[in-house]
This record gives sequence, C-alpha cells and structure tokens, in this order.
Amino acid sequence: MEVELKEMLHDLESLKQSLPDPSHRASIDKLRLRVEQLTSLEKSRPAPRLKVKDMSAEVVDSNPYSRLMALQRMGIVENYERIREFSVAIVGIGGVGSVAAEMLTRCGIGRLLLYDYDKVELANMNRLFFRPEQVNMTKTDAAVQTLSDINPDVVLESYTMNITTVQGFDTFVSSLKNKSFCPNKEGSGVDLVLSCVDNYEARMAVNQACNEMNQTWMESGVSEDAVSGHIQLLIPGETACFACAPPLVVASGIDERTLKREGVCAASLPTTMGVVAGLLVQNTLKFLLNFGQVSPYLGYNSLKDYFPTMEMKPNPQCSNVACLERQQEYIVAKPARDAALKAKMEAEALLVPECPLHAENEWSISVVDDSGLDSLDAASSDMEKRAAPDTLPEGLVRELPSADKAQELPTSEAPLTSNDDLEDLRRQLEALNS
Amino acid sequence: MEVELKEMLHDLESLKQSLPDPSHRASIDKLRLRVEQLTSLEKSRPAPRLKVKDMSAEVVDSNPYSRLMALQRMGIVENYERIREFSVAIVGIGGVGSVAAEMLTRCGIGRLLLYDYDKVELANMNRLFFRPEQVNMTKTDAAVQTLSDINPDVVLESYTMNITTVQGFDTFVSSLKNKSFCPNKEGSGVDLVLSCVDNYEARMAVNQACNEMNQTWMESGVSEDAVSGHIQLLIPGETACFACAPPLVVASGIDERTLKREGVCAASLPTTMGVVAGLLVQNTLKFLLNFGQVSPYLGYNSLKDYFPTMEMKPNPQCSNVACLERQQEYIVAKPARDAALKAKMEAEALLVPECPLHAENEWSISVVDDSGLDSLDAASSDMEKRAAPDTLPEGLVRELPSADKAQELPTSEAPLTSNDDLEDLRRQLEALNS
Repeated sequence: MEVELKEMLHDLESLKQSLPDPSHRASIDKLRLRVEQLTSLEKSRPAPRLKVKDMSAEVVDSNPYSRLMALQRMGIVENYERIREFSVAIVGIGGVGSVAAEMLTRCGIGRLLLYDYDKVELANMNRLFFRPEQVNMTKTDAAVQTLSDINPDVVLESYTMNITTVQGFDTFVSSLKNKSFCPNKEGSGVDLVLSCVDNYEARMAVNQACNEMNQTWMESGVSEDAVSGHIQLLIPGETACFACAPPLVVASGIDERTLKREGVCAASLPTTMGVVAGLLVQNTLKFLLNFGQVSPYLGYNSLKDYFPTMEMKPNPQCSNVACLERQQEYIVAKPARDAALKAKMEAEALLVPECPLHAENEWSISVVDDSGLDSLDAASSDMEKRAAPDTLPEGLVRELPSADKAQELPTSEAPLTSNDDLEDLRRQLEALNS
Repeated sequence: MEVELKEMLHDLESLKQSLPDPSHRASIDKLRLRVEQLTSLEKSRPAPRLKVKDMSAEVVDSNPYSRLMALQRMGIVENYERIREFSVAIVGIGGVGSVAAEMLTRCGIGRLLLYDYDKVELANMNRLFFRPEQVNMTKTDAAVQTLSDINPDVVLESYTMNITTVQGFDTFVSSLKNKSFCPNKEGSGVDLVLSCVDNYEARMAVNQACNEMNQTWMESGVSEDAVSGHIQLLIPGETACFACAPPLVVASGIDERTLKREGVCAASLPTTMGVVAGLLVQNTLKFLLNFGQVSPYLGYNSLKDYFPTMEMKPNPQCSNVACLERQQEYIVAKPARDAALKAKMEAEALLVPECPLHAENEWSISVVDDSGLDSLDAASSDMEKRAAPDTLPEGLVRELPSADKAQELPTSEAPLTSNDDLEDLRRQLEALNS
C-alpha cells in the first residue's frame, strides 16, 4: 500500500502545480496531509523478520536461533545446524499437524511439505494455530502464511489435495520423491513423513506410500473424546506397519462411518492435541538429530496422566504386499546389519576411555562416583542440570528413581521385543493382564 | 483506515465540483480511482471474530465451541459452559505461560490475568506463540493482542510488572483478591494461579502470595537443557509448598546466579515447552471442570519419554510461616473434612445402582461383562471409544494393559502416601467408583 500512497502524493503535487486558484491549491494541501497521515499509519505496521544465512550461537536478543544452538553447548545435540538439511512431510494440517508444523518451523527445519484439502472454520478455533481471520482459507495456504511470517528461512511447500484419491496419491508419492532440495540425499526426497490425519483411509494411504518407498514415518492420533492420543514410529520391514496391526474398530469389522451421525462431531482440546504434537515433534528431533531415545509407541491417557509404551514387530501375514517385501529385505540384510552394529560397538568401546562425555564444562559440573550418593533421580525444577548419566553435582540428591532404574522394574511398560510373531506378542500381553 | 479513505473521496468530489478546467477534473477522477482501489484493498483485510453470548453445542462450521461442548455428549465433562465463570492468573508469559494462555483462551476460559515485565525478542521465536512482528512489545501487550483476536469472549487483564519487587508483589496480591468479575465467589478472586516463570525468586513470590491467601496454584518448569520439565499442584496446608521442598540447587547452598555467565543462555525447545503447557492446562481443566485425576506432580523426561509422578506432603519444619499456618488449619479441619467425605461416600454408594454412567448413548456402545473379553487396553488410534471403565464395544479388544492395572503394579510411579485415615477413605471412595 505504501507504493500506491507515494504515487498519489506525486499526482497531487502535479495537479497542484497546474492549478491557478490558491483556494484549490489549499484543498490539494489538505488532501496531501491526509495521504501523509495514511502513509505513516501504514509504515507503523511492523516489518517482517528477514532471512538468516547461517545459524549462530551468539547470545543476543536479535538471534532467533540462540536458544536452539545452546543445545550443543549443553551436550544434548552434537550438530544442531544439520536441521537445515532435513525435509519433513506433514499430512493433515489440523489440530496436531498445524502445531507440529509450527514447532518444526520455529526449530528452523530445512523444508516442510504440507498436505491438506480442508478449509479453516471457526469450529477449528478450539485448537492452537489457526486464527479467526483465516476462516475460509485452505488450511495449507493459512499455514504457509503464518509459518513464513514466523520463520522465512524454512522452505514451505503447500499441497492442497486429498491423498486418498488416485490422482492425489500419485501427486503425494511424486512430491515425496522430489530431491531438488537436497540432490545427494539417499532414499526419497524427505527424511520423515508425519501422519496427522483424523481418519483410517488417509492413514492407509500414508502407510501404502511409505511401504512402497521404504520411507520411515510417524503416525499420530487423538481419540474422539479428546482425552487420549498416541504417537508411533513406523519403519517399513522393521516395525509393524499400519496394516500389520489395524486399529480396533477396523479389526472387528465395524465400519467407521456407522459410528458417525448427522449433527454429531468429535470432541477436541488444544491441550491433548498440543501434547501429542509436542511428543511427535520431540521424537522427530531425536530421530533427525540423533539424541535421546526415539519411542516406538507412546500413548497419552490424559484423565490419569498415564503414558503407555510398547514395540510392535511386523506381521508376517500382513495384508500389505509392499510391507511383506520390506520385511523380506529386512531379514536378508540382517547379517550385514549385525556385523555393522558389532563393529560400531567395538569402535565405541575403544573410544570411551579417551573421550570425556562433555569436553566443555562451562557449568562447572563435577562428576561424582555413584556409590557415594543416595541414588534418587528427579526432574523437579528448572534448575536441574544434566551431568554424566546418573551423577549429580556434589551435595545434590535425586528425588525420584531415574528413568533407567524405573524401566528396569518389572512393569507393564517394558517393551516386548523377543518374539517375532505378532500373535505371540498378543498372547504375552494377555498373560500380563490375566 | 477505511474512514480516512472515505473522507478523502468526499474531499476529492468537492474539489472536482469547484474546478472549471476539464483536464483538472480528469486528474481528480484519476485520484479518486486510486482511493477506491485502496479502499477495496483495505476492505479485503479480514473482519475479526465477533463475541458469542452463550456457548452452543450446535455442530456447524461457524461455532467456535462445538468441539468443546462435545465433551459433554462424550461423557467427559458434566457442564462445560461453567468454564466461563472461572478466572485463572498466569505468572510469566514466556515459552510455557504464553501457550498455556492461548490454550485457555481457545477453551473459552472466563478471565485471564497475565503477569510479565519482559519484552518480546527475536531470541524468543524458537518457542510457540509470539510472532516476529511483536518484537519490542511487552509480552503482556503482545499476548493481549493475539488472544483477543483469537477469542474476544475472554476477559483479559494485563499486568506489566515484576512480582518480586515490593510494589509488584502488592499489586499482584491485590489483583488476585479483586472479585469484580465474580462477586459471589468464595476465597480470592481467581480460581487458580499458574506459575510459568523461569527463576527461583519469582516462584518464591507466587508461593508466598498463595500461602498467605490460601490459594491453590500449579507450578511448572523446564530444565535449562530444554529436554525435561514438570508440573506440580500446590494446595496450601495440604501439599508441600514451594518452600517445603526447595529445589536441588538452592537446597545445597549453590547460588543460582553463579551458574549463569555472560554470553551463556539456557537452551529451549517449542516441543518441551508445548508439552509442559499442555499437561499444565489439561490438569487445570481437570481441576476446574471436575473430571479425571489431577496429578499432584508430573515430570517429563523427553530423552526417554519417561513421566515420573509423586506426591509431596507439607514439611512441618517449613521455613514459610504462612505455610505452617495453613498446615495447622488443615489439621484442625480434619474431623469435619472426614465427616463430609464419609457422608458423600455414603450418598454416592446409595446412588450408584440406580444411575447409569452414561445416560445418553449416542454412540451405541454396549457395555459387556469383563469376564467375557480378552482384557487388553489401548490408546491406539483415533477410533478408540470411551465406554464404561475397562469395557469396550463387543468384538473390540484392548492392546495394552489399562492405566488402572498398570498402576496397581509395584512400580516407582506409585504415589508415596502415608497411612492416615483420610487416605484410607480416599482409597475406599476410589474403589467404590471404579
């Protein structure tokens, strides 16, 4: 609008020069004043954030990445800036997908591919992200508008389409295969696919595409009563695919659509969806930047603040042909994989005594012998510090058993990994519950 | 801006009438065209969402509350609309507090009181909520701007001040006591205080105010390495206050400030802060709307997706005088409290056989006898349904042990409770309700 106002000022000036009557010239001056006021009003609208060439760790208020680069100094992430090389596809830009997209955008992810066919409605305003002024825009367009304002460094690709149609599925697959962002990348053009959809058909479409492309993906979901949810990691051939262990309603032959009626909608809460999006993107960061443990499955029961975990092996009787092919490949590659793992472990065993866990020790944390401490562990305040595993600065005690120790206890949350057969796993679970 | 443009059109028309020369009149027409273009540009900017008088459960795209009111139909919340009566104070509008404020705003909370003295910086852009265009605004002003656009039904009060100064503390306390929003409310003027600050002094100020006022509050925090966090419920006299069990660093006599150095900042992630805000507001909703179980303490270790829980009793040697007074009052009131609880239990025991858990059964969920089912429990997809506790529609099986069963196992997550009469009564009540 500033350009138009400037042109108007110029026109007014020309007109004034050509007018002989002083009263007319005074009228022009009055108009010129109005235009100048509008110009300053327009200029007071804030300027957008500019692109940043390199991620800097400098601690200044104007650095949008200082708090993220600090993850390196804290010893959490080895090379944070690698995040700019990664591409993540998000299918479904609703209550979970939109928040996941915003989190990845604020983390400075390299490239986001966004898929949705729906429009923003006022009925979506009980979840985070979309604003009332975006009502009637497509969710993908509204997301690109908001995300590019937040972080112009992220490459955003918007696909306004339904991936469950034949044409939509083809476009989906070819967009995932496009490698122009990172031509030397192995595999597909994306590092991870996040499924944030709200229906069975769309999940099966993501599952089909990822099985065909041997593409690792993460699934997420929130219950229709809004108070529980889950995330799940799916690696074709290695873990159960979505068709290996179909959801309960489908497994028992009930049509999903018979559960829905006119004038009835699912409940939803910004809290549950925000937590699920947070857990999903946290696991995405752990997967991409190689820190912590990526959860194979994590549930969230909000009524009891209970978080079940489990692992699911692929089903050798899976109905998905591409899944069976990936399973076969995974078995064939086992000897090579085991040898590589053994070599890596041996190399790491040699390195450990020579290489301190934290070369820089800016926080003056001293590593004390475990045996001299009451071994209690806690996440009790924002002042807790990460030292070497299971040690704390001298004089500090832990308030709760550490996650390691709790997971050693015989709880129902222990991952079940020994047997290959899904039926065996089910039988074990039944035995646990009896 | 539309008004100014309209006035300008009027001025141009008057000027045109008074000009004798047709070429001058043509110049005016050209200017008028420009103003008309600017007007249509301005008009294309979207209109804000209007206030809504009553929360409706009607399932239409234009209803911002349909997905929340659905919580009633799903049997989760008895009376969702009560949320409009509640006031919540949020101290600290940073990575956790701002997201908590947005969640409560989207849930249609009655009134929010926001406290912060800081300004928005680009260095805050790695967390959700604030936008780059808000840099240099105070966090409270920026929050009010965003939140009132999202939901104009929420009454927002902004306090740009530091509650740890003498004057700030007094303003804080008197703002919490103000009852003009809900004059008949018992106790203070707010239903809950959420502490979302990042330092020890501010937490101690919230603790002091809440102990003095006998005000229930919730504490939250995220570690400086960005990968863990916690929430905690504090009821003066009943649970430990913040001074009863001071954080590790303070307990061992280390000055918090010696841990900070020039050019060093804490790491932070939108994921961890989003999860902590989600858990905090979920527990806030459970507390205010009386559903599920409010967690006394819930930790989040993101590296292992581990969620420790515990309960903390007040410390009879607490250094906080107001805490000791509240503890005394709590002990004195014990006989009356036990009698009331017993009467409630007896009344509920009489009601149980006559009152079905879900009067409306729009989802045609049949309650089947537990003994006839393989008892597997899961939160495995968005198609899972809530039926009566531990039952599922016929033909469906659970994939994981239920939260109830897992919590019966001897894990480190079992709450630490002493054997007093009240606890016994509570356990009996739970047994009756299960």
